[in-house]
This record gives sequence, C-alpha cells and structure tokens, in this order.
Amino acid sequence: MATLAEVGEFALIEEILQIAGRGAPGVRVGIGDDAAVLALGPHVAVSTDTLTEHVHFERQWLRPVALGRRAFRVAVSDLAAMGARPRYALLSLSLPPDMALADARAIVRGFDRDARGESVALVGGNVSRGSEISLTVTVIGVVAERPVLRRGAMPNQPIAVTGTLGGAAAGVDLLAAGRRGGRLAEAYCLPPLRVGVGQELARAGLAAAMIDVSDGLVQDLGHLCRASRVGAEIDLEAVPVAPGLRRVRSGVLRRTPLEYALHGGEDYELLVVLRDEEALAGAIRLCRRHDCKLTRIGKITAREGVAAKGGTLLEGGYDHFGMRA
Amino acid sequence: MATLAEVGEFALIEEILQIAGRGAPGVRVGIGDDAAVLALGPHVAVSTDTLTEHVHFERQWLRPVALGRRAFRVAVSDLAAMGARPRYALLSLSLPPDMALADARAIVRGFDRDARGESVALVGGNVSRGSEISLTVTVIGVVAERPVLRRGAMPNQPIAVTGTLGGAAAGVDLLAAGRRGGRLAEAYCLPPLRVGVGQELARAGLAAAMIDVSDGLVQDLGHLCRASRVGAEIDLEAVPVAPGLRRVRSGVLRRTPLEYALHGGEDYELLVVLRDEEALAGAIRLCRRHDCKLTRIGKITAREGVAAKGGTLLEGGYDHFGMRA
Repeated sequence: MATLAEVGEFALIEEILQIAGRGAPGVRVGIGDDAAVLALGPHVAVSTDTLTEHVHFERQWLRPVALGRRAFRVAVSDLAAMGARPRYALLSLSLPPDMALADARAIVRGFDRDARGESVALVGGNVSRGSEISLTVTVIGVVAERPVLRRGAMPNQPIAVTGTLGGAAAGVDLLAAGRRGGRLAEAYCLPPLRVGVGQELARAGLAAAMIDVSDGLVQDLGHLCRASRVGAEIDLEAVPVAPGLRRVRSGVLRRTPLEYALHGGEDYELLVVLRDEEALAGAIRLCRRHDCKLTRIGKITAREGVAAKGGTLLEGGYDHFGMRA
Repeated sequence: MATLAEVGEFALIEEILQIAGRGAPGVRVGIGDDAAVLALGPHVAVSTDTLTEHVHFERQWLRPVALGRRAFRVAVSDLAAMGARPRYALLSLSLPPDMALADARAIVRGFDRDARGESVALVGGNVSRGSEISLTVTVIGVVAERPVLRRGAMPNQPIAVTGTLGGAAAGVDLLAAGRRGGRLAEAYCLPPLRVGVGQELARAGLAAAMIDVSDGLVQDLGHLCRASRVGAEIDLEAVPVAPGLRRVRSGVLRRTPLEYALHGGEDYELLVVLRDEEALAGAIRLCRRHDCKLTRIGKITAREGVAAKGGTLLEGGYDHFGMRA
C-alpha cells in the first residue's frame, strides 16, 4: 500500500481535489488556488478546532473515515452553538509520512461525507508532515439573524441540554482500555450533529444563551455563566445520563455515571439557556421535531458559580495542558 | 517560569484575550465565544497554512515572537497572491505542556503585532497540547474586485517576481548548521509582506495570474502553468538572487545561489504574470511605490512545462512528505 512518503504531497492534494473539488453553491474558487473565494452574507461566523493524536484520540480508536467524520462534527458544533448556518470548511492535515495514502484519503472522505450532509463545502486546507496525526478544521457560516452568544443568560431562566451526557468520556475510557465498539464508544466516535437544532433555536428566538458541551457540562456551563455574569444551579437528578452508561459493569470505568455526565466532555451536545418557561416548552417541541431530546437540568441564578440544587459548588473539567482543572 | 502545564489552558486563553481581545472594525463577536462573528463583503477569500516544528522550523531558529510573526506572514501571503484584502485571522496553537507561558504569550504577541500592522484582527483559534509546536493560521479577507487566480496566464505574457529569491532556503541551511543571524537567516525568519502590492496589482488590472513563491520558484510557477494550461520559459540570468547569497563563503551551503533561487522555497514573494509588456511597466512602477523591486524573469509559452531560456526543462521543489519532488 503506497505511503504518503512514496506518493508525495501533491498526490494527496490531487486525491482531495477528486473528493471535494466539485463545485458547490457559493464557491467561486475552491481548492487548488491560493485561497478559496466564497459568497457569504454580510455577517459571518467562523470557528476553528483541532484534533490531535495522543491528545484527542489514539489511532486504534477510530478508523480513518470515522476520524474525518468526527473532525467535522466537532468543529461544526461551535457554529451550531451560535445558531449559525455552516457553509464552508477548511481542513488542515498534519500526517506522518509512513501513513498509507488510502488512510489519508479515507479521512478526507469521511470529513467530506458529513460536511456534504450538512451542505457544507470543503473549500481549502493544508497538507503537511507531522510526527502525529493532527486535523485542524475551520468552519465558516452565516448568522441568519442575531447570533446566540454565551453572554445572554439572566437569573431564573431555565437551563436545558440536548441528547444525553457522559457517554463519550466513558467511551474514551473503554477504548483506552482496549474495549471496542458499543454505544459508549460510538458516542465518542460519532458526536451528534446539532446544527439544525441550533439554527432553529436561534431563529425562533427561544435561546437566551448557548454553548456546546465539549469540555464537560460543569466547565462549559461555567464558561457561559462567567460570560453572562450569573451562576447556575443544576438538578443532578435531572441530568440526562447516557443510557448505556448506567448499564456498564466494568472495572474499567473509574467514575460514576453522574460524574461522567457532569465532567466527562466530548459530548458535543448543546447547552441552552431559554428565555423563560414558555420558551423552554417551545424548545422541547422544536427539538422533538428533530428527533432530539431536550432536558431541563436547572436554572440560572444571580449568585456566581455552578452549584448543585441544594448548594454544593461543582467544579472540574478538561484542561488541555494539565489533566483536570 | 510558569509552564503551560502549571497554569493550564484557560490561563493561556486569558492571555490571548488580553493581547488580541480588543475590539476591531467589523468584529461583532471576537475571541471568547463559540465562534467569531464578522462583518464581511459578499465575496470572501479564505486560506489556511500550518507551521510545524521539525518540518518548517526548529525551536532554536526562531524566538517565539519571530515564530508568531512568521506564521502570520506565511499565511497572509496566500491572500496577497490573490489580490485580496486580509481582514481577520484565526490562530490554532498546539504547544507542549512544558513550554513557558511567557513563550506562548510571545508567539501570540508576535502574530498579533504583524496582523495589526496589516489591519487584520485576530478573532479566534484554538489551544491544544501537542508533542511538537504547531501553528495553523486561517486568514479571511475580502476580494475587492475580481480575484487574481492561478489560471489566467496566456502565452507570451511576461512573468515577474517581487523582491529576491533563494535567501530563505539558504538561511534555513545556515540555521540548521548552527549559524545565527545574517541577512539570509533574516529572509527566512521574517518573510516580506506583499499584501499591499498584491491588492494594488489586482485592483489595477495588471496581473493576469499570480501565486506566491512558497515551495520554490520552479515548482510554484509549475502550479500556475498547469492551472493556466500553459508553459513558461525562465531567463536564468534575470532571476533576482538574494544579494547576500552570492557573497556567502561557506561549506554549509550545498547548492549554488541560482539553485537556491530556483528551488529553495520559503521566499513568500509574489510570482506575477502580467497582461502584456505595458502592464509589466506599470507593475514595476506600482511596486516601486511600495519599495518593492519587481523583476521580469521570463515569459509564458504555449508548450507545457517550465524550461530555461534555451530549452532545458526545470524541475524540483519541496515536497512535504518526501524531501524533494
């Protein structure tokens, strides 16, 4: 099987052109020139995210096509959390020279597959050598009306979360211990796509503030609260723990299901603060139309900090340089 | 001195906010939310580029502030080559946990300094752990009128290049041999900023096709020719070799000055195909106003391939997975 070192950089770029080079609406100049030229609305949302081997994943956890899909889903989650409509993506690949060309191609195919599914065109990127696999994805979208920011929350507004939490982090622990497959590993490998839900929540004016849960519910809720200068109270019994999590009988899982759900990270669900109880009811109906569960988990408070109902302060989450904050 | 592992991810993000978080024209939402929200024209140019330790640089070659400046200049060069006006940038940092926070801050300061100099706002990015330093920069700009692409060249049009060539690659060889400083090392560390020149060449309608010289003159001219389905003939005696290069008496440099200028790469000068001889004269005057030399080095031909005047085919350049194509 040909390696990247054998076929060279431009053979891989040629493959990428084959996969992603077809025209797409709004793409005036796509991959293959110095820069892409894109038609965009007057207000643009842009975000970037990186997946690095040994930090965010190990090679044996994810087949290349799944790695590509995950990279897209993780990156686009930030636009979903703003209610933006993603339109274009750039994919920068750092790959070891001994990687098979077929594996590099599969990464791009996986990425492009999920991107197309959301009508997002892969319009550029970069290919470079690296000792570890690293994917940096930039996503660009349009903000239809006012974007939903982190800073709009006010006391007494209800807090809700899409889907379930904790499955991805438990999946990582299972994968790291050499266990394959299963719903928890799947929760990690293929995060949900909340792009449609995020846009509709924004468009309907139901969300006061929103963030995606990437570093753990408590930590991301903390970010939202600090941006809004408020606090939050979580009803621990209401937190929607990933269904597979309560059933795992395994010495491998080192935390309780609730701990995974509160601090695990990697879930890429949306954490939404609704304007009021009526907006919450509307949002639950709206999400149901997307086959997405929306669960009320607490409320915004005037007192700073994220606490459990009753008063205990909650802390912790993922820190990229240390291990846990 | 505090390391990233000691202070954590969010301390570094806080530093980045201090450096780059001030408002800038057009930035509706800057660093600190899920995505940046930007005001942009209807047609947008976007490009991304990566600098990775051991591939594009070694830590001892560049102080952190110079690394940040170089990362900006390298990335923005792609927009310059399209005649676009860069407006926003995203910086994704992969950094080893044992790096000093002060060094990480200096990278961002250097980046932000050169970005501000070109009225480009740093609006987002990502911070992550990695075993090697890696910077992925996405730049976003507006295309004032028609962008200058690679595919516009036609036979008999003159080819010209800004500045001088070969200095950066020779500088790399000197730095790799442990030699410090000097104009050649400087040519590598601090590539020229051709943003203004690129925009004016585009706006004046003088350039038929354009590309920046990142992988070596012959290779990048080859890209341009393939995109335009033409060939090129270079007058080797006219190629503007970096002035310091002819004077180096060093067993360290393994190639002739002309070889460095033809195949070296890392120059980040603009390679421009002018509409005709009159446009060339206008372009030379235009560049002079920017204190930038523009040198005619050959002409476009109908026969494919990049050849020296006289007929010898020229080949070679940098390949990111092997060593030389």
